[in-house]
Amino acid sequence: MTRAINFSAGPAALPLPALQQAKEELLDWNSVGASVMEISHRSREFMDLAQQTETDLRELLTIPQDYSVLFVQGGAQTQFSMVPLNLLSDKNEADYIDTGYWSQLAIKEARRYAEVNVAASAEANGFTDIPRRDSWQLNPDAAYVHYTPNETITGVEFHWIPDVGEVPLVADMSSTILSRPLDVGRYGLIYAGAQKNIGPAGITVVIVRHDLLGRTSKSAPKLFDYQQQTKAGSMMNTVPTFNWYMVSLVLKWLKQQGGLSRMGEVNQRKARTLYECIDESGGFYRNRIAKKCRSWMNVTFDLGDSGVESVFLEESERAGLIGLKGHRAVGGMRASIYNAMPQSGVDVLVNFMQDFQARHG
Amino acid sequence: MTRAINFSAGPAALPLPALQQAKEELLDWNSVGASVMEISHRSREFMDLAQQTETDLRELLTIPQDYSVLFVQGGAQTQFSMVPLNLLSDKNEADYIDTGYWSQLAIKEARRYAEVNVAASAEANGFTDIPRRDSWQLNPDAAYVHYTPNETITGVEFHWIPDVGEVPLVADMSSTILSRPLDVGRYGLIYAGAQKNIGPAGITVVIVRHDLLGRTSKSAPKLFDYQQQTKAGSMMNTVPTFNWYMVSLVLKWLKQQGGLSRMGEVNQRKARTLYECIDESGGFYRNRIAKKCRSWMNVTFDLGDSGVESVFLEESERAGLIGLKGHRAVGGMRASIYNAMPQSGVDVLVNFMQDFQARHG
Repeated sequence: MTRAINFSAGPAALPLPALQQAKEELLDWNSVGASVMEISHRSREFMDLAQQTETDLRELLTIPQDYSVLFVQGGAQTQFSMVPLNLLSDKNEADYIDTGYWSQLAIKEARRYAEVNVAASAEANGFTDIPRRDSWQLNPDAAYVHYTPNETITGVEFHWIPDVGEVPLVADMSSTILSRPLDVGRYGLIYAGAQKNIGPAGITVVIVRHDLLGRTSKSAPKLFDYQQQTKAGSMMNTVPTFNWYMVSLVLKWLKQQGGLSRMGEVNQRKARTLYECIDESGGFYRNRIAKKCRSWMNVTFDLGDSGVESVFLEESERAGLIGLKGHRAVGGMRASIYNAMPQSGVDVLVNFMQDFQARHG
Repeated sequence: MTRAINFSAGPAALPLPALQQAKEELLDWNSVGASVMEISHRSREFMDLAQQTETDLRELLTIPQDYSVLFVQGGAQTQFSMVPLNLLSDKNEADYIDTGYWSQLAIKEARRYAEVNVAASAEANGFTDIPRRDSWQLNPDAAYVHYTPNETITGVEFHWIPDVGEVPLVADMSSTILSRPLDVGRYGLIYAGAQKNIGPAGITVVIVRHDLLGRTSKSAPKLFDYQQQTKAGSMMNTVPTFNWYMVSLVLKWLKQQGGLSRMGEVNQRKARTLYECIDESGGFYRNRIAKKCRSWMNVTFDLGDSGVESVFLEESERAGLIGLKGHRAVGGMRASIYNAMPQSGVDVLVNFMQDFQARHG
């Protein structure tokens, strides 16, 4: 068994101890005589696991008691529909901040249900920077303000929480949740697909403040109703039990690592190591994002010459560094360094990059 | 490691060889240096797996070329919403056949979108029989006719395909798909949650005839559009890769077993063994379903006395027979004997039942 150093953007690397435990008990979990994926989601054993998962997530993120924690299917893109269908209520206006690819997909879907006001856009700077808060044109009548704290494709990240007054703030945290401590109380709703920092693809976390429940559109599919899902403990129907179980193992690992303060330190250091390598390459590697909003999770860079980039990808893969190809929408390279990537993995990449530059620079 | 004999209704037992292979390659799949759940769904390796899964399903079910095969999230209950949102088009009437719990949930959800005509109901006989086809009051203007070929909770199964003329026939096959050969060409649309005969919970198969695509309601969430999902090869967004992978292993196992003709023989024999035990118990065990529509997949029985039933459940669990408790809606016992349950498992149950009767009868 050879494990690569895995920089995939998502589905992404999982903590090795979580995978090892899953492997060990794949045929007989918790002495039930069956795999965790072969038993009822309503069995006592699975319900205990589900409850513990919520407890661990609440503890890690210090989630206030007046928030529901849901585990649903469909990925973050299903939330692009569920958010307007749940939060618009009798309003039909919503504010969105456009910082790139994922913001734009959220906006496009919301436009099917709401009058969307793009209160700020990073388009003018080619999505390499985040518009300053004082330039935002917020609508005081908006049902909510939606933004994308980390744009996975370009590697642009908010290192601050926008103050939007009394209007509920909604965030697609798919690629940044659990990477550092978070002040959940500043948000009306947070959602995140699991496949970066939470677990395997196929399960999505939603954290929603109670006063936002009970506003669901009558035309929404019944499983889309946050209030009903809250009442049912996310079990309105059969849940993706194995995916949920993997989340439980990842959260357990996070607690063993020392929680999110510790992860924040580790993640900041990993990102700094990599950006320093890029910045000190004399332009051989280039990151185009404004320094104050460089992502800790997705570090993008290009080499100017696409021929050299192909060689970089071939050689890095041969060296056991996988998943470095940038998203097809922007090209170049991307090193996704979520929680499961240790500092040592980043160090190997940096050594490879320096060696590659010495040979091709 | 002790494996129980697992009669869970779903999530249900999976074929042991599929679980064993998953266990073996959980840390390094296909020599990519990572688990199958840690790589991009758009990687060449995963795309190959996805394609092979569809090919295997098409081969096993002899799916005609003018049908799309989709793998989506949300379970069969999401299809309760997706079916009307996709098939109503400019009509607002749909026919539903009510044979029990799952039919009724489908009807309830459809009523939010359509004028539902319950063309036939088994209510009069307490949902123990299926209304004869010549009693159905079909509406020639219905957008489709929906029915539930197997009611998992009571164990009532259609052993025939209803002829509904030119109106598209839609079936929730969650608990019977892949249990025997199927004439897919008789259907407009088939859907099935994976967690009985296809794989783990968290992925749903939809098989839809091409002429039914392109009718999606403009108010449907974008991921609900069968036509867009067809164009995207079910990859409009990140797919539940591990769940899909498990499906691929289950289908491979089914092919190794000799395909669906062979499975049909095995399943029929398993069911016959169990119903004979019940029928020959002199009323100690009772199955209330009309013989001609007894399910091959879910065999229900009660013991008349709830005190004795508790003892039955305790003793059977101690004997390593798990998942026999009936659904909370009907009580009693239920032995779910999907594809992954071998004849030998049923034989152990029958021996236990005969022994139990000898001691408590």
